[in-house]
Amino acid sequence: MSIYLHDIPLSQAQARLREALQDAELWRMLGVESIPLNENALGRVTAEPIWALVSSPHYHASAMDGFAVIADKTNGAQPSSPISFLLKESSTQYVDTGDPLPDWANAVIPIENVESLDENGDITSDIRQPSFIRIRAAVAPWSHVRPLGEDIVATQLVLPKGRILRPADLGAIAAAGYQEIKAARKPKVAILPTGSELVPIGSKLKSGDILEYNSLVMAAQVKAMGAEPTRYPITKDDFDSICQRVQEAAQTHDLVLLNAGSSAGAEDFSARVVEKLGQLLVHGVAVRPGHPVILGMVKNELGIRSDETGNLIPIIGVPGYPVSAALTVDIFVESILAKWLGRRPNELPTEMATLTRKIVSPAGDDDYVRVAVGKVGDKLLAAPLSRGAGVITSLVQADGLALIPSGVQGLDAGEQLKVHLYRSKAEIERTIFCIGSHDLTLDLLAQFLAEHDRRFASANVGSQGGLIALRRAEAHLAGSHLLDPATGGYNISYIRQYMPNIPVKVVALVGREQGLLVKKGNPKGVKNLGDLSKPHVQFVNRQRGAGTRVLLDYHLSTLGLSADSIIGYTQEEYTHLGVATAVASGRADCGLGIAAAAQALDLDFIPLFQERYDLVIPKEYAEGDLLAPLFGLLAESEFRDAVSHLKGYDVSVMGTIILED
Amino acid sequence: MSIYLHDIPLSQAQARLREALQDAELWRMLGVESIPLNENALGRVTAEPIWALVSSPHYHASAMDGFAVIADKTNGAQPSSPISFLLKESSTQYVDTGDPLPDWANAVIPIENVESLDENGDITSDIRQPSFIRIRAAVAPWSHVRPLGEDIVATQLVLPKGRILRPADLGAIAAAGYQEIKAARKPKVAILPTGSELVPIGSKLKSGDILEYNSLVMAAQVKAMGAEPTRYPITKDDFDSICQRVQEAAQTHDLVLLNAGSSAGAEDFSARVVEKLGQLLVHGVAVRPGHPVILGMVKNELGIRSDETGNLIPIIGVPGYPVSAALTVDIFVESILAKWLGRRPNELPTEMATLTRKIVSPAGDDDYVRVAVGKVGDKLLAAPLSRGAGVITSLVQADGLALIPSGVQGLDAGEQLKVHLYRSKAEIERTIFCIGSHDLTLDLLAQFLAEHDRRFASANVGSQGGLIALRRAEAHLAGSHLLDPATGGYNISYIRQYMPNIPVKVVALVGREQGLLVKKGNPKGVKNLGDLSKPHVQFVNRQRGAGTRVLLDYHLSTLGLSADSIIGYTQEEYTHLGVATAVASGRADCGLGIAAAAQALDLDFIPLFQERYDLVIPKEYAEGDLLAPLFGLLAESEFRDAVSHLKGYDVSVMGTIILED
Repeated sequence: MSIYLHDIPLSQAQARLREALQDAELWRMLGVESIPLNENALGRVTAEPIWALVSSPHYHASAMDGFAVIADKTNGAQPSSPISFLLKESSTQYVDTGDPLPDWANAVIPIENVESLDENGDITSDIRQPSFIRIRAAVAPWSHVRPLGEDIVATQLVLPKGRILRPADLGAIAAAGYQEIKAARKPKVAILPTGSELVPIGSKLKSGDILEYNSLVMAAQVKAMGAEPTRYPITKDDFDSICQRVQEAAQTHDLVLLNAGSSAGAEDFSARVVEKLGQLLVHGVAVRPGHPVILGMVKNELGIRSDETGNLIPIIGVPGYPVSAALTVDIFVESILAKWLGRRPNELPTEMATLTRKIVSPAGDDDYVRVAVGKVGDKLLAAPLSRGAGVITSLVQADGLALIPSGVQGLDAGEQLKVHLYRSKAEIERTIFCIGSHDLTLDLLAQFLAEHDRRFASANVGSQGGLIALRRAEAHLAGSHLLDPATGGYNISYIRQYMPNIPVKVVALVGREQGLLVKKGNPKGVKNLGDLSKPHVQFVNRQRGAGTRVLLDYHLSTLGLSADSIIGYTQEEYTHLGVATAVASGRADCGLGIAAAAQALDLDFIPLFQERYDLVIPKEYAEGDLLAPLFGLLAESEFRDAVSHLKGYDVSVMGTIILED
Repeated sequence: MSIYLHDIPLSQAQARLREALQDAELWRMLGVESIPLNENALGRVTAEPIWALVSSPHYHASAMDGFAVIADKTNGAQPSSPISFLLKESSTQYVDTGDPLPDWANAVIPIENVESLDENGDITSDIRQPSFIRIRAAVAPWSHVRPLGEDIVATQLVLPKGRILRPADLGAIAAAGYQEIKAARKPKVAILPTGSELVPIGSKLKSGDILEYNSLVMAAQVKAMGAEPTRYPITKDDFDSICQRVQEAAQTHDLVLLNAGSSAGAEDFSARVVEKLGQLLVHGVAVRPGHPVILGMVKNELGIRSDETGNLIPIIGVPGYPVSAALTVDIFVESILAKWLGRRPNELPTEMATLTRKIVSPAGDDDYVRVAVGKVGDKLLAAPLSRGAGVITSLVQADGLALIPSGVQGLDAGEQLKVHLYRSKAEIERTIFCIGSHDLTLDLLAQFLAEHDRRFASANVGSQGGLIALRRAEAHLAGSHLLDPATGGYNISYIRQYMPNIPVKVVALVGREQGLLVKKGNPKGVKNLGDLSKPHVQFVNRQRGAGTRVLLDYHLSTLGLSADSIIGYTQEEYTHLGVATAVASGRADCGLGIAAAAQALDLDFIPLFQERYDLVIPKEYAEGDLLAPLFGLLAESEFRDAVSHLKGYDVSVMGTIILED
């Protein structure tokens, strides 16, 4: 058995599965159950059209508190020539709102239009039980009456089949005479995580342990789609154990999601399991991430569907990487569950957006790229997030998903692409898009801004990249700390060079200590930049265009040190935490970065330079409503205090206006 | 105590309640609870920011199945000059995807790029445990490795506070080392229906009984907002009983919704209850529907919140009419629950739409008008639905809500208004907008079209109104059955007169029998149109512009009968079912209408005339994608059969093209 997968196009894979379901008579609503009409019916799907059993109102009801009359008898009533009615004679009768109209009456006069009189003809306070009433205007037939059937007429269609029930729908069904409804039965989905390296969430971790949380994510997805998930315990990588678990699950569920480990070897396992227990339909789909997808049918021996002619149920071998797993469920499971529930598949709203960075995409695959989305000026922008199939945070941060079809090999920055949005337009319009240099305070800023009704999305492309993004009107602000060697100042000369025609406001955020991050105890004895040239010292750098790299290069040149002499100079990280992680995990012995990053990962820090980190803001956004809370935070003590708790930050400069055009 | 209410503007009412909550220290997140990290955490709101406890990956992991190596040692490998590594010497080691990288290694070569050799140097099938591996290209340091922290770095912010948890969020929290989360506690909302005329849903109804379903709708709304509803049994209209129930509910809940009957008298009750048990803040709000709203605070004697300094909880007196009740919850309860949950209040997306019909709106009230929304050509249209506060089906049919502010006295047809949409744009674009004459087959059409991925919204304005709507490009099609007395034919002369410049396709839907609808047994002995002039016969008519009215007037004039001689000629209904209901309930003795309407309400029917009912479709929509399923249905036997089961329909003409420009 070859370990190589045979990717087929996505549409073909979906078609094969649909045909197999049709052959098994499973491409239809799964079943119907009667459920009580209470708040738990919310979100269920009607299995049949609902025709009214009764009318609503079911009798002619008074629409006001007032007096029932025969309309014709009020003709001629005028302010100057009123007409009186005697209650005792039953030519009028008090009715409350909702009371049935007496058989002889065909109109109601609201109580405020009536003078209530006692037997002497004087105004009485007993307004509901006077002797007489006196009116000074006529009423038309059926005024102030809610006639039988005003809302619902018996036999009319109240709701069609396939409707996802909303609160008002439940009320209408009740008004139409029901106390239970026929709803589509909830499909049962079994989720089987497999892998000997997997450990349950919350476990204490040793090297090589992988936390099993795909089943958690998939269970939540399945639940949101309207089905009932069952999460099975982890099954180790043993062929017979997996087969047994799958057979067990197949007996009591409608769909099995078999979550493999991430290796090609592991998918091989899943494919062999499906072949042994049923039919393997698809082994590999040309989508990225997520191509090691297996689609098949397995036997459902005892079955929960005694009315079924076939005894096969679908099984999906879900890839092990978290993003792949989640996207596999969105791509393949949603359409099956929608069909089984008799509802339309959920569609994300789409918008066209401008790409902020080039995307490379393998030619043979449908590539699902996670993007952050912001609105800058009139433009909707999409900034690609991490492409890694294991990077669950790319789904957490994603505002949407863009599909780069298999024919296309990538898109350039500035091109338009269609984004399927996870977030509403209103949320996107509350998002502050920050592109530029990474700083740890940006995390804190995001946290504080969330409590001021703003989302803060930051993309780390380095200081220079930030200024260029501003020039292209692709961000609201940029973090920057580019040292100008000529002046010893920061940012201004670069701003004038990269974005000459854009009026800006530059505000200092923090002073920062830059220095060398080393493992605790400084085992390699690194003391200064000169030590970087030592042969036993492995360095890790920042990417080109990063302010930290500019700082490094400046000082290296001042010291007469050559980049070539530094082992690891070409190893690049995009963030301070990335540098810290490289040092903490032993990938490098040292890197240049900020004190707070060392503190975060418990590293030693050798301070070298002070610098200033500014926020560069085009004037049109600086004066706008979107960024107003940000300026508020810079002035508040709460945010300053939080930042000052991080090592190496000088908050005394926070909010200082460096430049204002 | 005056029974008249004192309406204050909405914003003022909301402000008073918010201030009272602030004074009671209740304008904040209500509380925090630890919940397990499983699929039930979906939709919960984070009570605190979540900082990563561990990194993910938490070790350097192989990203592929392959062989770990020291990258530098691969330098110089070429297709023509390969390099070999001996496993025994530990200069290489097999690793599966996800395995930890050995301490000495810093790269992985994928297995497909490796030749696995036995001890003789020949290719072996034991690809994972060969004696040697041979490579023909160098690898860069850290290739095919998922480094520690690639996804999440310990201490970084994973999710901010106030986030509504989605599936991927749960995965990220698990990856960050958690197995439970601090979520905002769910507020408990007590729902108390009151009214002696109320009966539980499903009850057998006698005249005057009102089905109690407001508590069902409100419980579903509250649940959808993320809180826990408790529906109390109906409390009769007894002051002391209501007070007792409210006090009981206040002890174990955070919010009480006291649902009064609909009369001004009943709200009075609620206001007195609130005054007795706490503070009455607002008695009447200038919103329509829904103005008899009461806002107040009541004492929470024992309390569930032992950490609270105050012991008051909010109470809302909700009006009795169903639409008023549902809107009161949307307007007042959502913002309180959002604050208590620490999340942002839900906002419906908005769009500007063109009004299809004039709306009159009381000057002093903020008027919430329910509208159906469709897209015709490029225009988004809003057709006002029933304004009745008791008409729950107006909320079922509503695609959105438009606010006519208190300063505005109404809007004309053709004016723009802002609609808060309940449905997505995609759903609206799948909606076929039919305006014109009412027919019972339209209900069936809606049902069948729902299974062909189309919504069918029909507004009944009569045949003439339909043609005018088409002329104004405000519908996709119109139902019409206007008799041309000159020719004896239908519709065409009117089409040319009302919409001369619009190319159309006219398709016959059904032949219909029109005649007199009378109570079973025909107690008034009505046999023909001549009998309508008899003094003991009460007629009910259709509205001006209705094809049925045109038919009536034509035949009256043919018979030399005067409209003045007919009692009830000026009483108008908008639909055949409306006429049938009027006769069935005794409001009238007879009306002119179709046989199927008589059948629906079990009336006798005196057939008089045959007519044809057509669908008039502007050519641009006739040829478009939206209406394609409709034409499909006209040709299918399933739809025809369903229609032929209704009395008095001739389906032999269905689908016949009457006219095609």
